[in-house]
This record gives sequence, C-alpha cells and structure tokens, in this order.
Amino acid sequence: MSDDHSELRAASALANNMLADAGLVLHAFGNASQADREAGVLAIKPSGIPCAEVTADDMVVVSIEVGDVVWGDKRPSADTPTHRAIYLGLGSVGGVAHTHSFYATAWAQALEPIPCLGTTHADHFRGPVPVTRPLTPDEVEDEYEASTGTVIVEMYGHGALDPEEAPAALVASHGPFTWGGDAAAAAANAAAVELVAGLAAQTLAIAPGRPPIASHLLERHFTRKHGPRAYYGQS
Amino acid sequence: MSDDHSELRAASALANNMLADAGLVLHAFGNASQADREAGVLAIKPSGIPCAEVTADDMVVVSIEVGDVVWGDKRPSADTPTHRAIYLGLGSVGGVAHTHSFYATAWAQALEPIPCLGTTHADHFRGPVPVTRPLTPDEVEDEYEASTGTVIVEMYGHGALDPEEAPAALVASHGPFTWGGDAAAAAANAAAVELVAGLAAQTLAIAPGRPPIASHLLERHFTRKHGPRAYYGQS
Amino acid sequence: MSDDHSELRAASALANNMLADAGLVLHAFGNASQADREAGVLAIKPSGIPCAEVTADDMVVVSIEVGDVVWGDKRPSADTPTHRAIYLGLGSVGGVAHTHSFYATAWAQALEPIPCLGTTHADHFRGPVPVTRPLTPDEVEDEYEASTGTVIVEMYGHGALDPEEAPAALVASHGPFTWGGDAAAAAANAAAVELVAGLAAQTLAIAPGRPPIASHLLERHFTRKHGPRAYYGQS
Amino acid sequence: MSDDHSELRAASALANNMLADAGLVLHAFGNASQADREAGVLAIKPSGIPCAEVTADDMVVVSIEVGDVVWGDKRPSADTPTHRAIYLGLGSVGGVAHTHSFYATAWAQALEPIPCLGTTHADHFRGPVPVTRPLTPDEVEDEYEASTGTVIVEMYGHGALDPEEAPAALVASHGPFTWGGDAAAAAANAAAVELVAGLAAQTLAIAPGRPPIASHLLERHFTRKHGPRAYYGQS
Repeated sequence: MSDDHSELRAASALANNMLADAGLVLHAFGNASQADREAGVLAIKPSGIPCAEVTADDMVVVSIEVGDVVWGDKRPSADTPTHRAIYLGLGSVGGVAHTHSFYATAWAQALEPIPCLGTTHADHFRGPVPVTRPLTPDEVEDEYEASTGTVIVEMYGHGALDPEEAPAALVASHGPFTWGGDAAAAAANAAAVELVAGLAAQTLAIAPGRPPIASHLLERHFTRKHGPRAYYGQS
Repeated sequence: MSDDHSELRAASALANNMLADAGLVLHAFGNASQADREAGVLAIKPSGIPCAEVTADDMVVVSIEVGDVVWGDKRPSADTPTHRAIYLGLGSVGGVAHTHSFYATAWAQALEPIPCLGTTHADHFRGPVPVTRPLTPDEVEDEYEASTGTVIVEMYGHGALDPEEAPAALVASHGPFTWGGDAAAAAANAAAVELVAGLAAQTLAIAPGRPPIASHLLERHFTRKHGPRAYYGQS
Repeated sequence: MSDDHSELRAASALANNMLADAGLVLHAFGNASQADREAGVLAIKPSGIPCAEVTADDMVVVSIEVGDVVWGDKRPSADTPTHRAIYLGLGSVGGVAHTHSFYATAWAQALEPIPCLGTTHADHFRGPVPVTRPLTPDEVEDEYEASTGTVIVEMYGHGALDPEEAPAALVASHGPFTWGGDAAAAAANAAAVELVAGLAAQTLAIAPGRPPIASHLLERHFTRKHGPRAYYGQS
Repeated sequence: MSDDHSELRAASALANNMLADAGLVLHAFGNASQADREAGVLAIKPSGIPCAEVTADDMVVVSIEVGDVVWGDKRPSADTPTHRAIYLGLGSVGGVAHTHSFYATAWAQALEPIPCLGTTHADHFRGPVPVTRPLTPDEVEDEYEASTGTVIVEMYGHGALDPEEAPAALVASHGPFTWGGDAAAAAANAAAVELVAGLAAQTLAIAPGRPPIASHLLERHFTRKHGPRAYYGQS
C-alpha cells in the first residue's frame, strides 16, 4: 500500500492534542481517531503516549474491518477495538474520541445518563446522554474492548437514538465516548459532553430532582444548530 | 451610510475577548454587544465564531429597531434579537453580554434566582439575581430569541427591579444575560454574576437553607459602590 | 515628613500582586497592607485598582492612628478603616490581607467557623478559623468599615484567641481577613485559609458531620511549625 | 564517602518539581524522595522549600537505616522519618511522594478509603485506596513522623495489600502518600490518586451510595496495565 495516510494521521493527531489542551485528558488517559471510510482504515493514538505530545508520525493506522496495523511502528491504543466497533456499527461516524474527563466520568461511574437540563445541552445533544448497560463477566473476559464498543452501538441499533443527534455515550463505570464527522468534531463533542455533565451535576446540587428542560425548548435549540432548519453559524 | 462604526465594533470585539479570557465562554457559547443609541445600532459577534478570536473586523452592526445588518459581511449572532429586545426595553443599557458560565448557568437551569448571601454579591447587585419565567411553547416556536429578551425586560417593567441596580438576569433553563453602560461593563458584570453564583452554591452546600444577607448590610455595600453616596474607587 | 516609605510601599504592593497571582482576588476585590509601627503608618492598595496591577507608586500611606493620607495621590482602599482597627487592636500584627476567595468567603457567608479537620489546617491555625458576630444595624450605618475591624479584634480580646496562633478570621456575610509579621505573611495566610476552607468543605461533602482532628495531632502539627519547639523549615 | 549522589538528587528534585507542576502541592506542602537501595540512602526535599523551586543542589541525602545526613547543607524535610519507614517496611519501593492534594486530602480527613468506582481507578489501584488507623496520642507525641510511616506499612504487613498493586495510602486526618519504582513513578501515582479521589467524590455527589465497580471489570483493567498479562503501552 503506497498511501502513507499523512492527512488522516495529521487530523487524528491534532484531535488528540485538542483533548489535552482542553483539559479533558490527563497524561495518556484518552484517545482520538479518524476514519478514512474509502480506504477502510482509521488513524489512532499509540498506546500509553500522552495526548498532548503525539504527532502525525506517532499515529498508528489500522484496518477498521480486520484490526491489523497498516502503517506505523507503534502499538495502537488498547481501546482500538472499541473505536473499530463504533465505526463498524455506526456508519455515519468519521471520528471518535474517548476521555476520562472529570464530570462525564463521574456520571458514567454513577451509572446514570446525563439529563438534559438546559439549552447548553440541547445545543449539542437531542436528549439525555445515554449510559450503556454494564458488561457481563463474559464480555469483560472475552474481547473486552470490542464489547465496550458493542454496548455503545447497541443503544443506537433500534432507531431509539440517532448517532448524529446523540453523538456521545457514557460507558458504565468507565467514561465518555464521543464522535462526529471527523476527529476534530469528536473532540469538540468531548468538550461539550464534559461541559453539560458539569452543568447537570451542579444544577442538581442546587436543586435536587429538578426535571429536564421542556421538550419544545430542547427541540428549538437543537434544530437551530443542526439539520435543515439550522440558522446558527456562518454556513 | 458612511460611518463604519469602527470604535463601536472595536469596543464590542474587546468585550467578547474579555468573556473568553475570563473563562466565562467555551468556544462560541456566548456573545457581547455594544449599542450606539444615537446611530440606532448595535455591534455584535458573528454567529458561531469563538469569542476568543473575534476582531473588530468580524463584528456585525445591526439596526436596533429593525434588525437589519448595516455593516459587515457575516451573519450576526443567533441571539441578536435577544440583545435588541433588551436595548429596546431597557433604555439605559449601553452593552449586553451573554454567557453559559458554569455556576450562573446551573442556577438558571435550577430555575432559581441567585440569593444575595454576602457582600461580594451586594457590591454588584442590589438583591437576588432574578430568573425569568419559562417561555411558553408559542413563544419558543415564534420569535424565540426575541421572546428571550422580552421575558427579561418583563421583570424590570413594573418598577420592581431597576436595570442599573440589577444588571444581570438568568433566563430559565438557559443562562445569564448581563448589561451595563457599555460592552466592557456588561462583560465585567458577567464575571461578577459567575462569582456570586459560585459563592452562593458553595455557601448553601456548607449551610443548606442559610437566609440572605441582612438588608442593612446589603444596602450599605451596594450604595458604597453605586449612586450618589458612593465612596469606592478613584472618581 | 521627608520619608517616602518606599520600602513599605514596595512590600505592600508585592503582597497585593501575590493575592492576584494566587487566584485569591478577582479584579479589585481584595487588598493587602503593611505597617511601619515606628513611623505609625500603613501602606495600602488604592481603592478600585486591580490587585494584579498595583505598583509601589500606586500605594497610599495612611496614619494608623488618625487615618489621614501621609503619602500618595490616590484614595486609599475603602477597607482602610478595617485594616487600621486590626493594627490598633492586635499589637503584634505587621501586615493584613483581605480577599473574597471562593471557599473562605463561602464559609463566611455560611456564618460558620472553618473547623480544623486535618493537619494541613493545623500546620497554619491552632484551631478553627473563627467567624465574627454579625454587625448591628448601627455598626453598619455608622463607621461600617471600622466596625468590621472591631468585631474581628473583639474575638481576640479576652485571651480566648491568640492572633499569632489564629492569624485569620472570617467576617460574617463578607469574607476572610488574615495577618502576619508583614504583608507577604498575611498574603501567605490568605492562601492557607482558602486551602483549608476548601478542604473542610470537601471533607464534609464526603463525610457529613465528621468531627475535628484529635487535639494531640492538632497540637503536634502546629507546634512543629510554630513557637519554641518548631523544627520545620531551614532556620 | 566520595559519591555525591548527583543522579539520585536530580531524579528526586525533578519529581518534586512535577508535584508542583501538576498542581498537587501549594508552596512547600509536600515532598518527594528517591532511594538508592544499594547505597542505603534516599534523596529528599529540604524542609520548607517550595517544591516548584528545588534543584538537585538543594536536595538532602539521608541514610535510610539511621537517618543521618550524608550529603547536603540543608535540613531535610520534617517528613523524612515517614519516608524512611516506608522504605524500610516496603522493600520494593524506590520512590515516595507526599502531597496535600485537594480531593485525596479530603478523603483522608473524612477518614474513609477511596472506593474504586470506575476503570480510571482500576487502571492504577487494585481496589480501594486504604486509609490508616488514627495514630494514638503516644505515637503522636513520640516519633510522630516515623509512626506516620509505620501505620502505612502496617496495612501492607499481613499480605492483605500488595504495595505494588496499591501504591497509595491515605494517612488519617493528614493526606496521601504514594510510591513507585522511582520518585517520578511516585509523583505520577500522586496525580492518579488525586484524579480518582475527585472522581469518587463527584460520583457519590451525583449518586449517593453507588457501590464499587464489578470485580471482573476491576481485575481486567488493572491487569491490562500491570503484571504479566499487561498489553497497555509500548513495551
């Protein structure tokens, strides 16, 4: 294969740097990848290397379908099978990010979805940020990282959730995974989920039991930024 | 119109930068504007552009009364009708700021006014920071952003609240809007409302149900900084 | 008077800068002073000027006994009478600092002393950080700032508290005042009181009702750093 | 002794700097050391010097067994006997760090172990981070700092805890001590214990009483990073 995937690796490396710059990742506790659907590959951070430091040359290019390394001399992130499962299960996804960011991880550890309590949340996610079911002992023992992706994909499988409208999920007892059209969009969603996770926790600390935002307000805010009726931004 | 409103745009851009520098705005989740009452216009941040990056040349000048763009090649903030409604409804306002800052947004999502629990608050706001009533489904559907400004103005309409003495309001399920003589003053009030929102939340976490500050202490602190009896500062 | 108090002003300005650098003061919401007991004066921050920006040339030198300005062309901090009352009432104090730092102010607004829950606290303060009684309406109306100092001094007046062993007090509904041998020591105590205020709040959030540290451990930690049996540090 | 322990001192100084850079230590409220088991010495921060500022030349080299200074002209950290007790009691330890970091200290003051609520924790510690029993009045009076190390070592003495699998302990009413193969590893564990302490506190604030992570998930995460079955990182 003559392609060295240099653009893909650069975009993926930059998103990993963004996660660190935004304070979402301490040391190497997170990772981002970007997919090239046509080539059937993803570029992901190598295992154990801090997000703040990775460059395009450090990245590892992996086959989405099979999982073998097609470019790079480092071992890919231990979470690579999770990324692959998300790309395989959610066809519209072009980039994936995973962090252990403070508030989003706390909600994941609490085993609770992040409720949509305001317009900041509705601007990004059309409803609560869902939390996966716990993995079974067998799923943890056998193909643990792939199973982590499978339980995310499960939630989107019956049409109950649209991955473009809910581009973030909490893995139970673990932390947030986010996605988007590319790795930068996935990283931006990682920042958004951390912000709304913090706002929700603080809101309920002030007013325990406060119910979610009214559905008409949620809809208005989501659709002014996303979809055919959007009128936010410059394009 | 030969005026390019360069001073107005510069002042407004700087206030947007201040919101980002103060950590009150992530990415583009906020905006500031400044009005030129004589010219009947306001200069506001363009939609979707990060507050940290906007320059005077990015700003959009809009007619306060009608809402049409009179200078600039970008689309103005989606929240422009909210700013216009505030300028139209509160005659003394020269600048407006809107953020999704952490603690102030949490109070807005909690649907509760920020109680005045100490002198830090009384130095800036003569009483609780009020929260608007929820918008009706019709108001959300029809002229949503203008209605957001209208429910703010409503609270000041019967003389119950003086916009110069309470230059901040929480929009229910949304976040804080602040104002002042110019955009910089509005941005400074955005920082003040975030500080007192955090102090109030932390105070009630330590001592649930603690009542507000004594009224004589509130009055003394507000009037030592504001109005004819003020003796704070250098002028 | 030919003395321009240049060393005193420089030391005081530096302590004001330290308060800002340590994140204890937003804008101008705090102040530090240093006394020259022999000359009978203190140097304090001018009113309304941000702590981060003040230089020795901005400082105002004021007579401790009478309160008149003996050097400087600016108006001294509105809190100058509080500083004077502390110097007049607590003879060993050489520097005073006042902030609205987050956690210490929350305890002050909660009207509760900061309990001594661990060795970090015991290293700095020999027991709880006390909170003043509320000021009466008359005290607030008449000589408000001087009364603020008086209620602090009151707590140390009957030998119940030693100002060198408890160099910090919370003014009810207001915030912390700290002191020390000079302005830098007062500023260091402002940082220490903020740290222990945060630790105490977080400890009680984890374990509500947790009782104070054992008295033998409190004593050991305080006396290893302070007094004749101290063995901490290089001197 | 002709050896000036320059490498040992440099490694130890760097770890002290790391503690400050990571925001785990304010001023001089913490310390790190590294041991040279062959030479029978440790290099530790001098007492009262800020962690951010120490250089290799400031460090003090002390005999692990006897405690006398074998290199350096400064007084070693007051906590040196605690470090010595840890090296003497836990044979595999090559570096020790002590901080008063915010969340870990709050758990220590709460007298509660940090429960393992998620994979972030399981990646670093194979179970809860334990808290020591309180010291007796006699232990505090007599050889206080050595006793502080002894009560840590006690917890690992009966095989209930493996110091390599649980390289962090909370000293009751005091704060965290961590260790590792060298001082840098100890400092990295100080950052990890602070992160998981914060996540646990925030998780329980959202969901009081949430039970620990499932044991199969804990085991999988710990063993993918540590021990013979590890497959995380580049080596």
